[in-house]
Amino acid sequence: MRIGLLTGGGDCPGLNAAIRAVVKQGLGEYGHSIIGFRNGWKGVVDGDVMPLERQHIRNVLPVGGTLLGTARFHPNANDGSMDAVLATLEAERIEALICIGGDGTLHAASKVAESGVKIVAIPKTIDNDVFGTDLSIGFHTAVNIATEAIDRIHTTAESHNRVMVVEVMGRHAGWIAVNAGIAGGAEIVLAPEEPFDMDKITKFLKHRHRAHANFSIVVVAEGAHAIPGSSMEYEVQLGKYGEIVAGAIGERVAAEIAARTGFDTRLTVLGHTQRGGIPTPTDRILGSRFGVAAVDAITRGETNVMTALRDDSVVLVPLSEVAGKVKHVPRELLNVAHALS
Amino acid sequence: MRIGLLTGGGDCPGLNAAIRAVVKQGLGEYGHSIIGFRNGWKGVVDGDVMPLERQHIRNVLPVGGTLLGTARFHPNANDGSMDAVLATLEAERIEALICIGGDGTLHAASKVAESGVKIVAIPKTIDNDVFGTDLSIGFHTAVNIATEAIDRIHTTAESHNRVMVVEVMGRHAGWIAVNAGIAGGAEIVLAPEEPFDMDKITKFLKHRHRAHANFSIVVVAEGAHAIPGSSMEYEVQLGKYGEIVAGAIGERVAAEIAARTGFDTRLTVLGHTQRGGIPTPTDRILGSRFGVAAVDAITRGETNVMTALRDDSVVLVPLSEVAGKVKHVPRELLNVAHALS
Amino acid sequence: MRIGLLTGGGDCPGLNAAIRAVVKQGLGEYGHSIIGFRNGWKGVVDGDVMPLERQHIRNVLPVGGTLLGTARFHPNANDGSMDAVLATLEAERIEALICIGGDGTLHAASKVAESGVKIVAIPKTIDNDVFGTDLSIGFHTAVNIATEAIDRIHTTAESHNRVMVVEVMGRHAGWIAVNAGIAGGAEIVLAPEEPFDMDKITKFLKHRHRAHANFSIVVVAEGAHAIPGSSMEYEVQLGKYGEIVAGAIGERVAAEIAARTGFDTRLTVLGHTQRGGIPTPTDRILGSRFGVAAVDAITRGETNVMTALRDDSVVLVPLSEVAGKVKHVPRELLNVAHALS
Amino acid sequence: MRIGLLTGGGDCPGLNAAIRAVVKQGLGEYGHSIIGFRNGWKGVVDGDVMPLERQHIRNVLPVGGTLLGTARFHPNANDGSMDAVLATLEAERIEALICIGGDGTLHAASKVAESGVKIVAIPKTIDNDVFGTDLSIGFHTAVNIATEAIDRIHTTAESHNRVMVVEVMGRHAGWIAVNAGIAGGAEIVLAPEEPFDMDKITKFLKHRHRAHANFSIVVVAEGAHAIPGSSMEYEVQLGKYGEIVAGAIGERVAAEIAARTGFDTRLTVLGHTQRGGIPTPTDRILGSRFGVAAVDAITRGETNVMTALRDDSVVLVPLSEVAGKVKHVPRELLNVAHALS
Repeated sequence: MRIGLLTGGGDCPGLNAAIRAVVKQGLGEYGHSIIGFRNGWKGVVDGDVMPLERQHIRNVLPVGGTLLGTARFHPNANDGSMDAVLATLEAERIEALICIGGDGTLHAASKVAESGVKIVAIPKTIDNDVFGTDLSIGFHTAVNIATEAIDRIHTTAESHNRVMVVEVMGRHAGWIAVNAGIAGGAEIVLAPEEPFDMDKITKFLKHRHRAHANFSIVVVAEGAHAIPGSSMEYEVQLGKYGEIVAGAIGERVAAEIAARTGFDTRLTVLGHTQRGGIPTPTDRILGSRFGVAAVDAITRGETNVMTALRDDSVVLVPLSEVAGKVKHVPRELLNVAHALS
Repeated sequence: MRIGLLTGGGDCPGLNAAIRAVVKQGLGEYGHSIIGFRNGWKGVVDGDVMPLERQHIRNVLPVGGTLLGTARFHPNANDGSMDAVLATLEAERIEALICIGGDGTLHAASKVAESGVKIVAIPKTIDNDVFGTDLSIGFHTAVNIATEAIDRIHTTAESHNRVMVVEVMGRHAGWIAVNAGIAGGAEIVLAPEEPFDMDKITKFLKHRHRAHANFSIVVVAEGAHAIPGSSMEYEVQLGKYGEIVAGAIGERVAAEIAARTGFDTRLTVLGHTQRGGIPTPTDRILGSRFGVAAVDAITRGETNVMTALRDDSVVLVPLSEVAGKVKHVPRELLNVAHALS
Repeated sequence: MRIGLLTGGGDCPGLNAAIRAVVKQGLGEYGHSIIGFRNGWKGVVDGDVMPLERQHIRNVLPVGGTLLGTARFHPNANDGSMDAVLATLEAERIEALICIGGDGTLHAASKVAESGVKIVAIPKTIDNDVFGTDLSIGFHTAVNIATEAIDRIHTTAESHNRVMVVEVMGRHAGWIAVNAGIAGGAEIVLAPEEPFDMDKITKFLKHRHRAHANFSIVVVAEGAHAIPGSSMEYEVQLGKYGEIVAGAIGERVAAEIAARTGFDTRLTVLGHTQRGGIPTPTDRILGSRFGVAAVDAITRGETNVMTALRDDSVVLVPLSEVAGKVKHVPRELLNVAHALS
Repeated sequence: MRIGLLTGGGDCPGLNAAIRAVVKQGLGEYGHSIIGFRNGWKGVVDGDVMPLERQHIRNVLPVGGTLLGTARFHPNANDGSMDAVLATLEAERIEALICIGGDGTLHAASKVAESGVKIVAIPKTIDNDVFGTDLSIGFHTAVNIATEAIDRIHTTAESHNRVMVVEVMGRHAGWIAVNAGIAGGAEIVLAPEEPFDMDKITKFLKHRHRAHANFSIVVVAEGAHAIPGSSMEYEVQLGKYGEIVAGAIGERVAAEIAARTGFDTRLTVLGHTQRGGIPTPTDRILGSRFGVAAVDAITRGETNVMTALRDDSVVLVPLSEVAGKVKHVPRELLNVAHALS
């Protein structure tokens, strides 16, 4: 078989493990051809192909990013790009397409599937909000990086008696904030799942600094927002690439805490460091398992599905069940974050 | 309530996160008293108590080991130690006991529970073979350390054209070997779940070094064993503490590969480095969730259970369902390890 | 002897190693008393003392920050704070004072020494610009953190074909920028030692992206500045604590590159993550050696000196020779940064 | 010019940084050709060449090992291999040869230089015992790895009340043992520079465990040895590759401590993990500076020298001054190791 492969959306650690697994399992186990497309859907539109052989995947397991390149671009029906996708797939005689990506890529994949293309999707997003899977590629490494940063900031907070605000990624869901907040021992975690109340935060911080300790760490997801009607309510600003502007909510929260408490308050925005670098073993293993499962599924003729991790097992879920949905942080985990503050 | 707390068996990273969570949730949320016992069951026998307050758990989240100390000792009915346990618990007016440990500690806990003591167990073992839970405290950090070691050994193997054998922990199950093997890109993984065939290994290595590459990495779990009847079959030697002697199987495998292939073959035994140091965020979060859940369960009156992770949720399972059973590496994961070699 | 000890200025990793060494060598080798002052010079002014014993320094070697606390405060003759310093030192019968700090602390120390107080200074600053020593405590860990961040950003730059601008600390000297730039393989390094020319930078980037690669990493020290008279020349803005506003120069450089080249350009400001966390072995060893040497010097009666590393040996240099001077990055090292771009 | 390049002896992190710098500076700055030889001197004997271009050195900065490969082989006059070296260099029209290696490689280099070949050597050895330079490539990363391992073992030692013996590399000099011992807070450090006295060690451990703490860490260099005439004196065993057998001295020391003190005593042998993996920034910078300096020297016509770091500057020293000498750990550093135990 000729199997196409692309990585779309933002890059993250673990993509190369998935690419490597697709190539090893595809070539080695079944004798398929694996045709990579460069820079996500853009490469499919442009016919920018890169047939993948064993030498392309040597030593890539511990390397972040994606050897295929990626782009924040998705084909649509209006500008001819969807037609170009179908034309390329036909020209390259692609019998099935493996799409590794987040919600944008998966949405595009489900549209392409409607045109009769056989698709297997592999979920990746450092935000971990893809519905239907316990884990997506890249999230675990992001939590590690954010926790390490909080560990570092902890010693400065304590040495200088400061409130340190740390802004992490997480637009629709607070997975990184909650997990890194628990792991880093943050006093306050602000996630999109729970609109925050600055009065309560101020009260908590004042009490803590009077009674227990003279420093605090506040972790804020970039998509966190205040309770409606409060003075902290604000319109989320989007950058020119449709991304939330880094630091926007962090700056507001830090300024408000400083103004209300008088404590020396500083902001750190983790930004792009969260999505790069050496993948953790968990992300390498997840990418490897998903890559093998995707090739196995295609070979068995099972398509228009997404590989997913459930109860530590790899399963396949219909694409139609996951596209357009957001997986939120469950109540129990939010409670642990609050209980241990 | 007066709640007892102990950590038993071998130490591992993440224990302090669990202790911290028990104390924070117990004291802060419910106003319980938390009575720590030093050095596992030994401290219960000896009445060696350490009432835990907030100051004991400051800054322990990123610290490996256990602030309570631990020992490889389990009470039994024959030498009076079980009676001593019950006497201490009564003298200290312990209403429920939280036991953090592996199979030995859990087995003792179920025996103590039979005498009417209310128990909640929290599973920890770097081997990850506790039945009934997807993850046990300490395993995740051990996989990280083993993967990092394999990454390091990889560059030497490649630069010197060697076969590098790496022995990792895993007596009854090959969780560390299989996970670190996949994450580190090992060519061969030997786990207790699958008796190995040295003829096949030799053939594979000779073919690989002729056709593809001139180096290989072989990961061996300490509990791996050859197929019955083969020349590599051997009696497992136990050290004076009942542990498998580090390096025993690794040395045999390395010597056999060297003799059969003629390749320059070296052994590295990871040993104790696998069970120490800074816990990964995953182990800190797992310990935190289990600690909160254990205190919640006791407060609700739900005892003689073990906290467990299933499908990324914390649940409680009856102690009687888990004691004495071993959780093995599933077929799918073993297959991924072999497919990507 | 009664020896005072303080840590002043910004915190950094390695301070606890120095404190530990002062206590171990002072108490253990000579039987001195070590009187810590909390929060730098502020604690001396306020008489906030903490007699240091062996239990205070247990397990602090791998912990960042300073167990004594610190503050960005320096005594002066005008507001009575210098008199308060002398009064406290007399009241506490301090026979010699060990001051661990950067240029501000060292300047204050030399003023205090003029009043007859016996001083030994230990240099610390992540900027590494203290004159007279090859290394100051904290710098080495900062370079590690910055390099790790550049490694991470590298994979995103390459996967997305971007120019990534990374702002690091370094107000008067570009030690972190140059070292992390070389170690991380940055294409461009902007340090205070060399005013930059945006025309040349633009030309270089356009050529590189046309001829060699479609991504670049630009490392900017917070104190970097454009050649006089250029459109990029600007007044450095100082924050309310006298610090350079994080991100100020980084934002200008990133915006200018985006405007002039049209390349997708992003900024990451490392900020406080550079000064926290686990000290590298080098910073632990440096702090240990300086701490031992400071106590030895005082015991021998050699004071008003600073411990320094020269040619991998610890030496003592007169305080008067180092205060008020800045150590710049040498030409050879700047050349290596440019040669390897 | 046509410049040859080889890496000899054991591999270590930072070699690729030096290779990259030689290629970038050689090709980019001067337009030289860089001819790599595979597997050290063996490749010169066999004429196994690999002309190096920019694409070979992409992304190698953070990768351990050597992209040229290496071998523990040195040419000599007796078996024709020295003649083969000269024949290959002439056939390939090599005008100067850059040799990256430890004492064996440098010794061979000085022999080859006697035959009229222009040589510039770059020192590498994780043992750090090359004479004439403050630092050799690979040592810094090895200290980091050993310190990290000691940090990990520390938590187990403390949780289990054990004596943990850690054997590190260092045949003729104890640089890794002393530096990692200080950084990791070891109680005892045994280095080749100071024959050890088991009576004193036993006495120290018994006193410590009685008075201060119930655990200890003992770091042993593989080349450590007891004072002459003691029961611990023994013949060093060499493996089939002329290396010290890993674990030999560590096992003796651990067994003796266990027998004499009765404490639960365990051994960990770090072995090959010390020489692999991601180079620290210091090793990347050192390799980069040495590589640039070597090419600059050859271009200026300055040969038969070794690049060296002295007082944080790169200098050139005559090969004749360094070959055959061992750089030992200085007294001050040994004293710090003992003072802080």
